[in-house]
Amino acid sequence: MTLKHQLEHDFKHRQEWALRRQLGIPNNRRLGVCTCMDERLPIDDALGIRGDRGDAHVFRNAGGLITDDAIRSAMLSCQFFGTEEIVIVNHTECGMMSAHAETLVKALRDKGLNLDDIQLDPALPDLKLEKGAFARWMKMFSDVDEICAQQVDFAIIR
Amino acid sequence: MTLKHQLEHDFKHRQEWALRRQLGIPNNRRLGVCTCMDERLPIDDALGIRGDRGDAHVFRNAGGLITDDAIRSAMLSCQFFGTEEIVIVNHTECGMMSAHAETLVKALRDKGLNLDDIQLDPALPDLKLEKGAFARWMKMFSDVDEICAQQVDFAIIR
Amino acid sequence: MTLKHQLEHDFKHRQEWALRRQLGIPNNRRLGVCTCMDERLPIDDALGIRGDRGDAHVFRNAGGLITDDAIRSAMLSCQFFGTEEIVIVNHTECGMMSAHAETLVKALRDKGLNLDDIQLDPALPDLKLEKGAFARWMKMFSDVDEICAQQVDFAIIR
Amino acid sequence: MTLKHQLEHDFKHRQEWALRRQLGIPNNRRLGVCTCMDERLPIDDALGIRGDRGDAHVFRNAGGLITDDAIRSAMLSCQFFGTEEIVIVNHTECGMMSAHAETLVKALRDKGLNLDDIQLDPALPDLKLEKGAFARWMKMFSDVDEICAQQVDFAIIR
Amino acid sequence: MTLKHQLEHDFKHRQEWALRRQLGIPNNRRLGVCTCMDERLPIDDALGIRGDRGDAHVFRNAGGLITDDAIRSAMLSCQFFGTEEIVIVNHTECGMMSAHAETLVKALRDKGLNLDDIQLDPALPDLKLEKGAFARWMKMFSDVDEICAQQVDFAIIR
Amino acid sequence: MTLKHQLEHDFKHRQEWALRRQLGIPNNRRLGVCTCMDERLPIDDALGIRGDRGDAHVFRNAGGLITDDAIRSAMLSCQFFGTEEIVIVNHTECGMMSAHAETLVKALRDKGLNLDDIQLDPALPDLKLEKGAFARWMKMFSDVDEICAQQVDFAIIR
Amino acid sequence: MTLKHQLEHDFKHRQEWALRRQLGIPNNRRLGVCTCMDERLPIDDALGIRGDRGDAHVFRNAGGLITDDAIRSAMLSCQFFGTEEIVIVNHTECGMMSAHAETLVKALRDKGLNLDDIQLDPALPDLKLEKGAFARWMKMFSDVDEICAQQVDFAIIR
Amino acid sequence: MTLKHQLEHDFKHRQEWALRRQLGIPNNRRLGVCTCMDERLPIDDALGIRGDRGDAHVFRNAGGLITDDAIRSAMLSCQFFGTEEIVIVNHTECGMMSAHAETLVKALRDKGLNLDDIQLDPALPDLKLEKGAFARWMKMFSDVDEICAQQVDFAIIR
Repeated sequence: MTLKHQLEHDFKHRQEWALRRQLGIPNNRRLGVCTCMDERLPIDDALGIRGDRGDAHVFRNAGGLITDDAIRSAMLSCQFFGTEEIVIVNHTECGMMSAHAETLVKALRDKGLNLDDIQLDPALPDLKLEKGAFARWMKMFSDVDEICAQQVDFAIIR
Repeated sequence: MTLKHQLEHDFKHRQEWALRRQLGIPNNRRLGVCTCMDERLPIDDALGIRGDRGDAHVFRNAGGLITDDAIRSAMLSCQFFGTEEIVIVNHTECGMMSAHAETLVKALRDKGLNLDDIQLDPALPDLKLEKGAFARWMKMFSDVDEICAQQVDFAIIR
Repeated sequence: MTLKHQLEHDFKHRQEWALRRQLGIPNNRRLGVCTCMDERLPIDDALGIRGDRGDAHVFRNAGGLITDDAIRSAMLSCQFFGTEEIVIVNHTECGMMSAHAETLVKALRDKGLNLDDIQLDPALPDLKLEKGAFARWMKMFSDVDEICAQQVDFAIIR
Repeated sequence: MTLKHQLEHDFKHRQEWALRRQLGIPNNRRLGVCTCMDERLPIDDALGIRGDRGDAHVFRNAGGLITDDAIRSAMLSCQFFGTEEIVIVNHTECGMMSAHAETLVKALRDKGLNLDDIQLDPALPDLKLEKGAFARWMKMFSDVDEICAQQVDFAIIR
Repeated sequence: MTLKHQLEHDFKHRQEWALRRQLGIPNNRRLGVCTCMDERLPIDDALGIRGDRGDAHVFRNAGGLITDDAIRSAMLSCQFFGTEEIVIVNHTECGMMSAHAETLVKALRDKGLNLDDIQLDPALPDLKLEKGAFARWMKMFSDVDEICAQQVDFAIIR
Repeated sequence: MTLKHQLEHDFKHRQEWALRRQLGIPNNRRLGVCTCMDERLPIDDALGIRGDRGDAHVFRNAGGLITDDAIRSAMLSCQFFGTEEIVIVNHTECGMMSAHAETLVKALRDKGLNLDDIQLDPALPDLKLEKGAFARWMKMFSDVDEICAQQVDFAIIR
Repeated sequence: MTLKHQLEHDFKHRQEWALRRQLGIPNNRRLGVCTCMDERLPIDDALGIRGDRGDAHVFRNAGGLITDDAIRSAMLSCQFFGTEEIVIVNHTECGMMSAHAETLVKALRDKGLNLDDIQLDPALPDLKLEKGAFARWMKMFSDVDEICAQQVDFAIIR
Repeated sequence: MTLKHQLEHDFKHRQEWALRRQLGIPNNRRLGVCTCMDERLPIDDALGIRGDRGDAHVFRNAGGLITDDAIRSAMLSCQFFGTEEIVIVNHTECGMMSAHAETLVKALRDKGLNLDDIQLDPALPDLKLEKGAFARWMKMFSDVDEICAQQVDFAIIR
């Protein structure tokens, strides 16, 4: 093989990596992951994947919960980017279990925040939260097994 | 040192790791990261951190965008978990740039979805999206520099 | 240093290793360990020692229990070989928890063994077990936390 | 293979490891080892096994001798845990060869111990030693080849 | 194989390496490279070759440009040493783009050099440069894509 | 140090690497090398440098000879890029010693080339070679020690 | 395979290694080497053998010369120990080339040694050197190629 | 440091290595070793030296015996090459212990060799062996401790 052919081959390979979304190439395992943003989660080792080598779309938020953003991200991944399987990972000793929502709400109010009239998404005024739902929106929980089973249900429904 | 003292010391060290949130211990760098769920992002290498060895809370969604979930996660991290700095990383060739929102909306409608009356968050019926805002909620974008600057502004405002 | 001196130095070092007991040199950590003979116990890693590099006397039997043999071994180690600390390690999913003693006794009787008149130690006819105590001698247990606490008590008494 | 199938497969593999005794799975080599608790014995290297990776049940006491505890442990291993072969390893420069039993007995009496009326096993009062047999119970020896051959005989008899 | 045969075989192999040019053996890939002398170019890694393990003739000058010396070297390599393919690598942020030729000419004149009557090649007085062409001879450039395309054209013409 | 400061520091470090010429930063060792393009020369190992990690400008042509291109490259490196030392490396068994210039000239003429009226540099018609000097321009040599000493002289003169 | 069979197999393998000469097992390559005792000779690397892993009998003396001791050693190796090939390695810059024999003889005489009536081998008075042959017995040489060719001749003759 | 100074320094270092004997530089440890040519002796590991990295002159013959050649080599090493210490290493299971000298003599005579009138050293006719001493010249031995002590005595006498 001439070096020219080798370089062309290498260039094509890297171009396909760089342009996966434009070319309609799914991730390696057609996999989505929904997990917590916690600083201690070895999520790649736990699942046996490399989340930065093309294996999976890894959605992470506080708790690893099915929020509207998780729905948005999963919808894009599954409907348009070729993902066919989603794994949800919650964990023990999660920060979401470290306090009751009401305690946190009180702490925020004590800092002077008006939680009844708050714009949740700075880029999207169309998104509204009903009055009094702020604590529910924070999504604190106390039982990790129960919450994990719920997330799976939420994801399946969609 | 007797082995008993050594084992007690090791046990305490691991307990503090496991109970960081309950004990009010922040992550190593008091750092939050907001980035895309893309399967190709070597986010740890790019920032010189270990996101699973205690360095940072890593929030990831489609696009690496400041959504209500990003606000929720950042609020918990900064107000209650000791985080003091947030880094936002967007990237070129993002899937969010692979199509116009209107194209995707049409594709979804063609599949039979009623996008005008949709429950965004399966666990939180209190969260409402105004009619006609579905495309904006998807948050597709076309200019990565512009979108990144906006996310920083959104995060600073809060 | 001449090679002669170096070789003499090396020889002395190895001789002291080989003749530790005759020279009255204790093990590195003056440590005894009592643990189960189970094939899955990474006892060195668990304690942060090297049991074959001189760190500790490691007694192992079925269960990691304080038997007369454990007493004999610990007595020699502590009274004559310089050991000053003993660590006892029991473990979950132990074979000693896999059945009730009575079930095993029945199984052995079904094989034709006369358990009432048995010489426990083939080298020591002086050692006798009272009639009907065979099941107790087998030392099956069901609660690993309870059994571990008991072993510590037994060891301290002595 | 979906990640779900892979995770199920991994989970089953680890469960079988954790529950070997309950599931009736023998150790890898259906092997028992009887050896000394000495801090210098590289027993794994000597036999070409990994005693903590599932290869063998490793019984260790002072001397690597066939005591009643060795009989108990070997009986459980062979009759109930699937072991089919036992290897006995004694060694030169053993602590059991460092003094005569009578010397040790005198040393213990000088410390004020009443060796004629002693409860050998703190958990098993049913175990009795005949008067005057204490020195034999200590099992000191002087010829390692002879003692090793005896242990093999003792083990075979049973 | 006797050691004599092995040594003869090894000797022949090394002799062929040492006498490649005299024996008419081309480089491994029948490849020539023309690139810049810049201290930052990982030219081997970029092309996937080992330029010092026999893979290629690597011509390097200021800019990686097709000069008369490049023509001379390529002619010898292709006409007499068996090379069949030439790769040209120019690079961004090249020193040749750091200033205009006229600026450099002025700087040299300010140092007192007479650029109109200069012997370009100390070993070859037969090589002449027409008056006023000194700046062109320096070959500064400003557009790396354009210059690279030109070099390919120059090389093909020959 | 906040991650922001660390990233700014890293960015500055890489920018200085990328913009060395524009910022007037010399190579690490203020060094230029002139050597042969031969595929077997381990020039980095021979000199104890890393030619692609910023240590030196490495000029390479057929023979490692001081041509007008070598003068051009060295002049730019020394006058404008901060180089203060030049090392010349010629080598035994060089292709330039594999034939007499006249033999090569005849070979080229036999292929139909008109060597008397040839444009040496396709990009620089101003560069002329006097009639009959073509063989000298090829710069074949026969004594590597002599040629190396000459190159040093040529370089010093300038 | 039972561990007993494995241990027997290993024991036999090591016994054959230890008792090679008694069992009539030749070295791995049926090879003898005759070389200099010089501290700089990487004789194993030079020949591609492991002289301490069973590959060859390595005779070394001052110079790597065919002396009566070399003949004795080679005779034993070839006639009784199964060696079939001998390689002789002499080297440049040998200590045997560092002075003329007469110079050394004079130096020894100046130290007071009587070189005319000397017992060459302290264990073998039967070995005699004719008067005046001491300098020849020292075997200094000046041309390594010539001396090497001679050694080969000497070895072949025998 | 300029590269010129570094290269000069490296050159001097290697020249001193190459010309040790001419420059009167002793080996690193001023050490001589006398040992057997056996293919199994890890002589470097046993002594903690590198015999090919300049540490010692390593004399090896059949048996590791003090022959006239050993005397010659040790005299040159100690009197002229700066050696100050000699270590003698003999070994168990040596080929020199595998048969009685008389057995070997008979075997050689049976092959037709005339052992009474033999030129021991093909290059030195001045070296004579008294009639009937051939078996003694072969130097077979049966007790390795005794022979080793003798070699030390022989070496000290000289």
